[in-house]
Amino acid sequence: MSERKRVQLTALEGIPAVEPGDDLAGLIADSADRAGVSLDGGVLVVCQKVVSKAEGRLVALADVEPSDEARKIAEEDDKDPRHVEVVLRETVRVVRRGHRVLISETRHGFVCANAGVDLSNSTGEDVAVLLPVDPDASAARLRADLEARSGGRLAVVVTDTFGRPWREGLVDVAIGCAGIDPILDVRGSLDLGGRELLVTTNATADQLAAASGLLMLKDSGIPAVWVSGVEVRGDGGVAGTLRDPQTDLFR
Amino acid sequence: MSERKRVQLTALEGIPAVEPGDDLAGLIADSADRAGVSLDGGVLVVCQKVVSKAEGRLVALADVEPSDEARKIAEEDDKDPRHVEVVLRETVRVVRRGHRVLISETRHGFVCANAGVDLSNSTGEDVAVLLPVDPDASAARLRADLEARSGGRLAVVVTDTFGRPWREGLVDVAIGCAGIDPILDVRGSLDLGGRELLVTTNATADQLAAASGLLMLKDSGIPAVWVSGVEVRGDGGVAGTLRDPQTDLFR
Repeated sequence: MSERKRVQLTALEGIPAVEPGDDLAGLIADSADRAGVSLDGGVLVVCQKVVSKAEGRLVALADVEPSDEARKIAEEDDKDPRHVEVVLRETVRVVRRGHRVLISETRHGFVCANAGVDLSNSTGEDVAVLLPVDPDASAARLRADLEARSGGRLAVVVTDTFGRPWREGLVDVAIGCAGIDPILDVRGSLDLGGRELLVTTNATADQLAAASGLLMLKDSGIPAVWVSGVEVRGDGGVAGTLRDPQTDLFR
Repeated sequence: MSERKRVQLTALEGIPAVEPGDDLAGLIADSADRAGVSLDGGVLVVCQKVVSKAEGRLVALADVEPSDEARKIAEEDDKDPRHVEVVLRETVRVVRRGHRVLISETRHGFVCANAGVDLSNSTGEDVAVLLPVDPDASAARLRADLEARSGGRLAVVVTDTFGRPWREGLVDVAIGCAGIDPILDVRGSLDLGGRELLVTTNATADQLAAASGLLMLKDSGIPAVWVSGVEVRGDGGVAGTLRDPQTDLFR
């Protein structure tokens, strides 16, 4: 049972456009300093886009030669065939396609639109921004860099914005984390009436991601949020929390 | 664009076990007083279970006669046939069944395990707790009661804890809301690079629900959370944000 009664989220502002090779930890630490936030005892939530950019996960569309399949999909869905080509390269399986939406299973096991490949033209040229190769490792590296810099202890959650079946609107979900157990497992503990809670597992990392999404709006220029007041315990990446395809009723 | 840079969530504690006919607004307002929270200019997030109990959405399992179908499913899945019977009565369509899980489409249009029917024995007898008949109306009534009492302006979000396809762990989602637009629509606005954001719609009510889930853990006795620092604008229920089955790739 958590003893915490208050959770606070602080937007980390003024982080400039991130480019490959940038010291993301340094940019975040500087922003935290300006916000008067001590990066200790809480969770740093950061959006995938700046992590991917810092890691150079960019493909200039001018360099992409679309395959026949990409051209066909692009024509049917009125999309840029070079974007579709990059999406297909990041896709291990097309889960659904229709209504101009392509739902991919990525090589990480995420199920999301366009394999998580966003388009950006922040540098003046059309660029595809791919998900990190290993978002849990990205989170772990950022955590180590921030801890080395601050001397504190913290967790890191890397988020992306996914749609969901059945419900309109996007929510931020965790695609990588470090220094926190992404699932808070309360199986076997008792509810207030003494009934055993057999299957209650809270997706803590996803809750943190969604909460931070309240501040990390797409047009806000806020790529990171500091969360204090949550119990940071355990460890383990997001990769281990994807459902086993064998027991997933929706693959 | 939001001007808010800090979001705070405060657990509302000490709310006793709720029974049919209880004045839920009064219990919440008293708890807020004790926490030093002014219920004005923010969002009251409350879990479905206490709303349903106050509304008397309870069925004593002792009074339930299971159908043949319920008995068959219960035997196959090792469940209480009376619980399965109540689930089937709340289900307009079984979306998936397997691995001892029954995914329902409820009469509201929600897709969730067991049609959202929980079991409780907090009163010493086995009781099924159903979702509210109209969770948006529940939120609107609670909002009106709280505003009349406090003289303030607030939004209300009613949440339940749902599983998701593809990812382990539960997150809280909004099943009803009032006084806030459940979707923050930024379609047509520009990102920092000048690219038009064609389809970015943030599921604000679901983000608020998931955020509050960080404090409303099942064994914590915290059925409500006050959220300040979010922009409360617009209006409209959750019912209008469920995907049209005609364009939903996962029905």
